[in-house]
Amino acid sequence: MTNSIGRVRTEFFSFDGFTLESGKKFGPVTLAYETYGVLNNEKTNAILVAHALSGDAHAAGIYEGQKDFGWWDSMIGPGKAFDTDKYFVICSNVLGGCKGTTGASSVNPETKKPYALGFPLIGIGDMVNAQRHLIDYLGIEKLLSVAGGSMGGMQVLSWLMKYPGRLCSVIPIATAAKHSPQQIAFNEVGRQAIMADPHWKSGNYYDDSPPAKGLAVARMIGHITYMSDASMTEKFGRQRKNGGQPFKFNADFEVEGYLHYRGDNFVKRFDANSYLYITKAMDKFDASDGKPLQDVLQGVKAKALIIAFRSDWLYPAYQSKEIAKACKLSGIDATYCEIDSTYGHDAFLLEIEEETHLISHFLKKVFYELSGNGKL
Amino acid sequence: MTNSIGRVRTEFFSFDGFTLESGKKFGPVTLAYETYGVLNNEKTNAILVAHALSGDAHAAGIYEGQKDFGWWDSMIGPGKAFDTDKYFVICSNVLGGCKGTTGASSVNPETKKPYALGFPLIGIGDMVNAQRHLIDYLGIEKLLSVAGGSMGGMQVLSWLMKYPGRLCSVIPIATAAKHSPQQIAFNEVGRQAIMADPHWKSGNYYDDSPPAKGLAVARMIGHITYMSDASMTEKFGRQRKNGGQPFKFNADFEVEGYLHYRGDNFVKRFDANSYLYITKAMDKFDASDGKPLQDVLQGVKAKALIIAFRSDWLYPAYQSKEIAKACKLSGIDATYCEIDSTYGHDAFLLEIEEETHLISHFLKKVFYELSGNGKL
Repeated sequence: MTNSIGRVRTEFFSFDGFTLESGKKFGPVTLAYETYGVLNNEKTNAILVAHALSGDAHAAGIYEGQKDFGWWDSMIGPGKAFDTDKYFVICSNVLGGCKGTTGASSVNPETKKPYALGFPLIGIGDMVNAQRHLIDYLGIEKLLSVAGGSMGGMQVLSWLMKYPGRLCSVIPIATAAKHSPQQIAFNEVGRQAIMADPHWKSGNYYDDSPPAKGLAVARMIGHITYMSDASMTEKFGRQRKNGGQPFKFNADFEVEGYLHYRGDNFVKRFDANSYLYITKAMDKFDASDGKPLQDVLQGVKAKALIIAFRSDWLYPAYQSKEIAKACKLSGIDATYCEIDSTYGHDAFLLEIEEETHLISHFLKKVFYELSGNGKL
Repeated sequence: MTNSIGRVRTEFFSFDGFTLESGKKFGPVTLAYETYGVLNNEKTNAILVAHALSGDAHAAGIYEGQKDFGWWDSMIGPGKAFDTDKYFVICSNVLGGCKGTTGASSVNPETKKPYALGFPLIGIGDMVNAQRHLIDYLGIEKLLSVAGGSMGGMQVLSWLMKYPGRLCSVIPIATAAKHSPQQIAFNEVGRQAIMADPHWKSGNYYDDSPPAKGLAVARMIGHITYMSDASMTEKFGRQRKNGGQPFKFNADFEVEGYLHYRGDNFVKRFDANSYLYITKAMDKFDASDGKPLQDVLQGVKAKALIIAFRSDWLYPAYQSKEIAKACKLSGIDATYCEIDSTYGHDAFLLEIEEETHLISHFLKKVFYELSGNGKL
């Protein structure tokens, strides 16, 4: 269980373009992606893993000469939940992102300059359509599963709505079929913090300093919402920060130092415009487009494993229950599991043991039934 | 119950200064305050009401030629919870504030310029000590009660610790004996947003534009935490904002428009440096200074009515229960009431009917016992 898949590398797939859900044509598009494990001859063991807001294609393993493992390395690898001895796991950076996939920081081939706000507004459905181009390119007709937490879970739901015939199962984790006003509100404050930074310059900062302070504030807000009251209390309490602080409004408490560290770190690895585009896509996402979710899911054959965490107040369990209820009402073979974690929203990255149990058994069953039905 | 106290005016009380809890001497100090009702001859019917972070001395009634009632007008007035036909109610703007009481925006008599960051760091205890000077000046030996919600409740607890002999009762509402790391974290992000604004200029913005965008972001974060997930859903749902928005990242949803409105409005009436000083005072506050609360409360004779609200996640009910438990353990005659509201932290300003029942009966009892004991 502790073995990593080891050395990995990011690959790139480009296509001419496609029509966004807004009706606008957009291209060319490059997707950064990684794969772990081996695609079987029948191409029936492929699992797509979708990442969250600040994630990327590097879900597992390690790059040559570096020391950081992928963001879900504890879940993807030999003998792990997404067992690379059995399955072929794919993860791609989302459209609009800044980790190799075309986004606002990419060069517009027409102008030879970064798109900046010339990049079109995109939705979760566009991210999924771009992923579908990759899956086509890889020659995979039907995915064994699509799995992901948080915004990754939204992509899972979008796959389920758009391409139910192209997947055997879905695993949406700590997610929502649509954002509540509170979720929108937190994202909007983050966006306002970025756009209030004079370095943002209406998105045209690529020749100059980025809006680092604004993006750091947005990330700090995010981190508060990713933890729970209890996990913060356990981790930081009211511990004072070491080192005399001559300035009145420096960080006095450990929790403040942690937020500063997280904010500053994020600025080094993330593009502020991508933060705007991706959070907007999340806020506008509505899995069933205003219709009752169970109506849209009628006739869908995929199985569903829906996971939520008790202390997650950013994506509260009731939102996952709504998904589970709609699945049940539409006749989908769905299982809902609420894990009793204190980690808050971060739990989907941390509650490895429980998630591994649930997911590995679920996938085994789906794969067995697929094989047993003679579809191999 | 619907009658307002009517026309009121703010008064000012100045004193030479005092020693802050940090050991630093500070003065002169002016306090802006208002009073409602009449102080009886025995001076036994005085109630001090303490305001929250963004409040001021204008708790009830209306100024000549204006149309806005005080922030707790629904609770203070003839026949109301704090019945001005019976009681003499006092409210003063806190030390460090920006509504008439000496704070960072006040002119330093030595330099003839605003203090800005030359204003000393203050604590909740300093706010209370300044209030005590006002109570002395008004000739009141013993307060019938000290009441307040949120940061007002912290002042109530500080009064109880520092001057237990000078009050008959306390009413801390939706408050905490000390901030959790989550509460500190939200305040810190607000401070960072203000200090990231280039108009902040290390606090020296009084000759120029204030850090409006940073302060607005801080206020928006605040407003999310003042409401509950449920109350936001009820009030805004996913309602789209009216009016075409040509800009990609304008407010699409009603909830975003609401936050912008609240943020922009706040900037007109509040000083950014005051926001820094006051939130820092809240974060550093620890009612019992690291000791068990029940130990510090030993021997206190005042009665306590402690009120919390079920959906308040910023000052969760467990924090009020901790106060109630400590009161009980130390032998204080304490009542704990948890009101089943969906309004979140804002409930202390909105759940008027239930609060009125609880508070009016509590005050009646305290006042009756005081009179019955022959202390009049």
